[in-house]
Amino acid sequence: MANEDSTFPRPIRLGMVGGGKDAFIGAVHRIAARLDGRYELVAGALSSTPGKALESGRVLGLKEDRIYGSFEAMAKREARLKDGIEAVAIVTPNHVHYPAAKAFLKRGVHVICDKPLTSTLADARKLAKAVETSEALFFLTHNYTGYPMVRQARELVRNGDLGTIRVIQVEYPQDWLTVEQHNKQAEWRTDPARSGAGGSTGDIGTHAYNLACFVSGLACECLAADVQSFVPGRLVDDNAHVMLRFEGGARGMLWCSQVAPGNENNLRLRVYGDKGGLEWHQENPNYLHVTKFGQPAHVVTRGGAGMSEEIAPATRVPPGHPEGYLEGFANLYREAADAIRAHQEGRTISTLIPGISDGVEGVKFVDACVRSSHKNSAWVSMK
Amino acid sequence: MANEDSTFPRPIRLGMVGGGKDAFIGAVHRIAARLDGRYELVAGALSSTPGKALESGRVLGLKEDRIYGSFEAMAKREARLKDGIEAVAIVTPNHVHYPAAKAFLKRGVHVICDKPLTSTLADARKLAKAVETSEALFFLTHNYTGYPMVRQARELVRNGDLGTIRVIQVEYPQDWLTVEQHNKQAEWRTDPARSGAGGSTGDIGTHAYNLACFVSGLACECLAADVQSFVPGRLVDDNAHVMLRFEGGARGMLWCSQVAPGNENNLRLRVYGDKGGLEWHQENPNYLHVTKFGQPAHVVTRGGAGMSEEIAPATRVPPGHPEGYLEGFANLYREAADAIRAHQEGRTISTLIPGISDGVEGVKFVDACVRSSHKNSAWVSMK
Amino acid sequence: MANEDSTFPRPIRLGMVGGGKDAFIGAVHRIAARLDGRYELVAGALSSTPGKALESGRVLGLKEDRIYGSFEAMAKREARLKDGIEAVAIVTPNHVHYPAAKAFLKRGVHVICDKPLTSTLADARKLAKAVETSEALFFLTHNYTGYPMVRQARELVRNGDLGTIRVIQVEYPQDWLTVEQHNKQAEWRTDPARSGAGGSTGDIGTHAYNLACFVSGLACECLAADVQSFVPGRLVDDNAHVMLRFEGGARGMLWCSQVAPGNENNLRLRVYGDKGGLEWHQENPNYLHVTKFGQPAHVVTRGGAGMSEEIAPATRVPPGHPEGYLEGFANLYREAADAIRAHQEGRTISTLIPGISDGVEGVKFVDACVRSSHKNSAWVSMK
Amino acid sequence: MANEDSTFPRPIRLGMVGGGKDAFIGAVHRIAARLDGRYELVAGALSSTPGKALESGRVLGLKEDRIYGSFEAMAKREARLKDGIEAVAIVTPNHVHYPAAKAFLKRGVHVICDKPLTSTLADARKLAKAVETSEALFFLTHNYTGYPMVRQARELVRNGDLGTIRVIQVEYPQDWLTVEQHNKQAEWRTDPARSGAGGSTGDIGTHAYNLACFVSGLACECLAADVQSFVPGRLVDDNAHVMLRFEGGARGMLWCSQVAPGNENNLRLRVYGDKGGLEWHQENPNYLHVTKFGQPAHVVTRGGAGMSEEIAPATRVPPGHPEGYLEGFANLYREAADAIRAHQEGRTISTLIPGISDGVEGVKFVDACVRSSHKNSAWVSMK
Repeated sequence: MANEDSTFPRPIRLGMVGGGKDAFIGAVHRIAARLDGRYELVAGALSSTPGKALESGRVLGLKEDRIYGSFEAMAKREARLKDGIEAVAIVTPNHVHYPAAKAFLKRGVHVICDKPLTSTLADARKLAKAVETSEALFFLTHNYTGYPMVRQARELVRNGDLGTIRVIQVEYPQDWLTVEQHNKQAEWRTDPARSGAGGSTGDIGTHAYNLACFVSGLACECLAADVQSFVPGRLVDDNAHVMLRFEGGARGMLWCSQVAPGNENNLRLRVYGDKGGLEWHQENPNYLHVTKFGQPAHVVTRGGAGMSEEIAPATRVPPGHPEGYLEGFANLYREAADAIRAHQEGRTISTLIPGISDGVEGVKFVDACVRSSHKNSAWVSMK
Repeated sequence: MANEDSTFPRPIRLGMVGGGKDAFIGAVHRIAARLDGRYELVAGALSSTPGKALESGRVLGLKEDRIYGSFEAMAKREARLKDGIEAVAIVTPNHVHYPAAKAFLKRGVHVICDKPLTSTLADARKLAKAVETSEALFFLTHNYTGYPMVRQARELVRNGDLGTIRVIQVEYPQDWLTVEQHNKQAEWRTDPARSGAGGSTGDIGTHAYNLACFVSGLACECLAADVQSFVPGRLVDDNAHVMLRFEGGARGMLWCSQVAPGNENNLRLRVYGDKGGLEWHQENPNYLHVTKFGQPAHVVTRGGAGMSEEIAPATRVPPGHPEGYLEGFANLYREAADAIRAHQEGRTISTLIPGISDGVEGVKFVDACVRSSHKNSAWVSMK
Repeated sequence: MANEDSTFPRPIRLGMVGGGKDAFIGAVHRIAARLDGRYELVAGALSSTPGKALESGRVLGLKEDRIYGSFEAMAKREARLKDGIEAVAIVTPNHVHYPAAKAFLKRGVHVICDKPLTSTLADARKLAKAVETSEALFFLTHNYTGYPMVRQARELVRNGDLGTIRVIQVEYPQDWLTVEQHNKQAEWRTDPARSGAGGSTGDIGTHAYNLACFVSGLACECLAADVQSFVPGRLVDDNAHVMLRFEGGARGMLWCSQVAPGNENNLRLRVYGDKGGLEWHQENPNYLHVTKFGQPAHVVTRGGAGMSEEIAPATRVPPGHPEGYLEGFANLYREAADAIRAHQEGRTISTLIPGISDGVEGVKFVDACVRSSHKNSAWVSMK
Repeated sequence: MANEDSTFPRPIRLGMVGGGKDAFIGAVHRIAARLDGRYELVAGALSSTPGKALESGRVLGLKEDRIYGSFEAMAKREARLKDGIEAVAIVTPNHVHYPAAKAFLKRGVHVICDKPLTSTLADARKLAKAVETSEALFFLTHNYTGYPMVRQARELVRNGDLGTIRVIQVEYPQDWLTVEQHNKQAEWRTDPARSGAGGSTGDIGTHAYNLACFVSGLACECLAADVQSFVPGRLVDDNAHVMLRFEGGARGMLWCSQVAPGNENNLRLRVYGDKGGLEWHQENPNYLHVTKFGQPAHVVTRGGAGMSEEIAPATRVPPGHPEGYLEGFANLYREAADAIRAHQEGRTISTLIPGISDGVEGVKFVDACVRSSHKNSAWVSMK
């Protein structure tokens, strides 16, 4: 259990775009950044409303001159400061991801961006180009990949423990949008201009899709989607059924829903090969259920017998003391810090953090769901 | 808890077609028939192999002159006996269901038939006609409808507790055909001539489909299927992903698989409406998980608080003492007995046992899966 | 899966004492007897109230001359009949067990008796003597020992898979007596004259105690009990905490309660040795959770990989189709039938059914709980 | 969800005693302190071995002159510094708690101390006196009280939702000491000189005991214990069975074990009253299972419907995204920070953090277990 490391002498100076008062994911990013002591939040453009940006910055204890009214202002000035930010966390509604990320990338500031990558596929491709031409690193917080047992699942597949993968079942049902909601979170997430063409597909479907690909190691070749907006007046989807075909012949199903009463964040992944199967459940994430065909099912626990040693750094407390969402999220932040430090020292380290290509894949997933749905669920290519 | 009933003075004389040595489902039917004391097995054509038919009949204690070498012989002779069978259980491979059922129906013997109804849609339609023109009753053992908590789930939907149904998720994964198998059960179930065009879709997909319709009370209008045979050389499907569209706008997904390691008979149903959701799991069937939107999830137990009184007769022991597969199966047999007695007395009683139309629907489901799959998963109508 | 057996040509003629209208456990015994087709109920003294005895016998379809007003009358007459009963099930309140069992044992009729053995320790010892001097067999329905996974647990201990046993935790909480109840079941079970000195200790504590001994193979040497009657006016205990010391140094705890809201029949057993541990839960009884120290926990399923072949006859349907309370109960009846047939043929077969010594142990357990409690929870010997 | 608070402008300067290299709980305290941004670690006496203290301090980025070789040196110098520590976390083996705490308390430094309070009852009483005479605050990290659903459980009891409490079942089994261990953690925890008279009773039994009292709101009046050391050569207990009698007549059982294979940190609490019951399980801590007698069981989720609003501040992310051990621990740190700030401003706020009296109770629990065990499990008073 290695969360404190002699090779990491000084926290990274971090800025944040978005995440002001009433935001949800910004606070999560801040805790994740704080958890292992590898970051110090020193600047922020926390809201597009200037007064709120100022107030939010003060609440977080930022110095007045590091509180900005816009990400452009922040990018420009911080880049010139001697002790300017080294990295920025972008936690705005989706449509701001691209311009904000671009502003920092072109100035060499490393970017940690929330998902989905962008609100349009065009933006996603432009952002990919911006990453390509930047010297800075780009990280996408598909945070569920930070859960140790998700990584253990990926290891099992890579090691061939499940044999050739045949079937992948992934689902992410929620219930909070079962009826019309009028809070800040619901508003932008159901506004196509800010959220993008996908509602549930963008907000949680991309997580499920990313998880399936991350664990199976397989690319999806095409999909067929039946996408719905059940709540009257809703402008984006709130439920989607998707059939998936992966390279090599594996087939899968993805279900995401925000109108399934009794589901909070009920993300669940099951992968089956010709030698075995596995199951992981986000709401009790410290356990991985594994069956080798012909043997009794067994349970690998985080930090317990059977967990790969390579995954040990992703765990902080001994087995039986549960780690959760924030710890998984913090794993991405810690690894990003390690990668940034290495980059600054001219080294490159490999991490498991999703990056720009995963982000583009996610936006292509949303786009493909919408296109398939418009063609009455015909198969559409992901290539 | 009413399993013994003064109004049921004499057991029904039962015959059986199929279910000899090495068969599986025949023994299940016999226990189900025995459990409540409403049947007496008195005749059998237990195998299409005469020697085996004889041996199997003796093991079951049948009199020698009531052991038959063929269902035709049994139908003919029993119909002429003064104390001939009143009902027959048909538990053969699928392709025999139609001719066997027809032979008894036309002689006024009530039929309790295993699922799927027939191996072809043409047979299904002919059998429907035979039922229509017969004076005898016809019952189909989609046995999962016999579980008390499945009936409780159906009640909740009917009562409007879930509101308007939006989403139905049903799945039935198994793992026993993950590799090629050479036992009797596997052989006929993977032979299209005996099993029909569907493998997993026919054997377990029809159960899942029936369950979804039974509980939701909704008819499926069309489906889109992606059907696979993963095991090399297998002639029928062993995995299917199916998207469903129900009357009234509800959408659903059905997954059946016989190649998902770690799943025994992992049938699971979830139904979501605009007011609430429910979940039921066959492997722990005494519990129904219910959430009314905005309230904590609760668990209704078989026989416990919150279970509808109308369902009480479907339970034999108090809550906390689990009932299982055989008890659910026996509920169908008990109700069939009640319906047969009523019929003999000139009365008609309504039961929840699936019948001929459910059977035709099931075969149409298999047929539609195959057709959709041939059209690259295009939507095909169920009408 | 062997429930139908060529070596068992003719059902055993069975009588029943108790189990009339409004009784609970009598119906359970009848289903258990019926399930595998090895018994035929032909006589009964179903109630101590003559009118009710008659009515109950008719409901069950007994011939009028085989319906008796008292067990004495039944024992006397049936013993003289050419086709008199071969075995009798005694399902009365506890205080009748001894006189009824004695009446049949002395006439050579095999006895299948419900638990606890008797209402007093003196009766238990007299009954033990009656069994000793009888040529008939005596079986006690501690039915939880009939669950296949309980037997699998016992096998694991016997095979040394858990190493030397150190700790045994067993508990049986219910909630139905949380408040005062006035139904027939509650009345006699809370009446010391009919139930014996123990309330929860006798009714369910004896089950838990028997289960712990059955699986561990260890005798309890002494116990210390803190016994309560929480409901005002209740004359017998409704909750008991008991510490146990077993031969060889293992220690344990037993908790039984009838006043624990949220518990239906929440019997749970855990056994720990120096090499591994196991856990079994009555409300989901088809699974046995096993951990070998230093390895991931695994789950053995009824009929699945890892289940001992010797236990296979105790299972009727394949894994994943749950068996429950009645099937476990029926396992005792089937084995009793096999033992009775063997006995009639001059053979002796060994079975796992609890017998007279287990029954005496159970009554000693209740007696010891009461004595310890009177001594302010001092240790009292079980020898 | 309030983890960032405008009324908390500046982090508290924190020192740490113990928690150097190879320690476990020190890192947990540091993460807990960091999580909500309310502390800054500025000084440490991280090991009693000077070289290790220095090395450990450097790894944590402490300034050289704030790294101390002993807690005495640290207490003396920090108390004189203008920006000296305001609070100290004591995370040493148990026998150091008393002298270390005393050194800081007498200099007005607030103390956050790990459990159990001390290694002897004499020390506990002296420490209580030191707290009484100090102006500084004292907090004890019985961290399980920080879990939101534990607090919800306590609320339910206080609100009378369970009625009068009758039965409390608490258990804390682990398995890591099933065989002899030779790592640092095992060594001091099984050494009576450092750990105190209790092994499992002190290390985890005190947690279980505290949890039972915290949730039920009841004081334990006396206990009877059967305490064992199963592993040969072990000098402290590794398993204990304890019967409890609470004020007002409630009874309970506590089981703690470090030799129960298959248990990681399987702390579980159940509380039953005459109106309802509840159950909480540390390994899946975001759920509270509640049954009101006569109603279906329901599940209250962290942040979900039915959770008390007063508990909201103890949760950081929405329901369905699990929080775990570190978040619960951090709740104590956050509240301690709030209390310290209030104290500095001359205000007093009430918190739910365990304090000195809980600590004394815990040591009395260990002492009572040992005494009862020496008297062959006689009841001993906790007063």
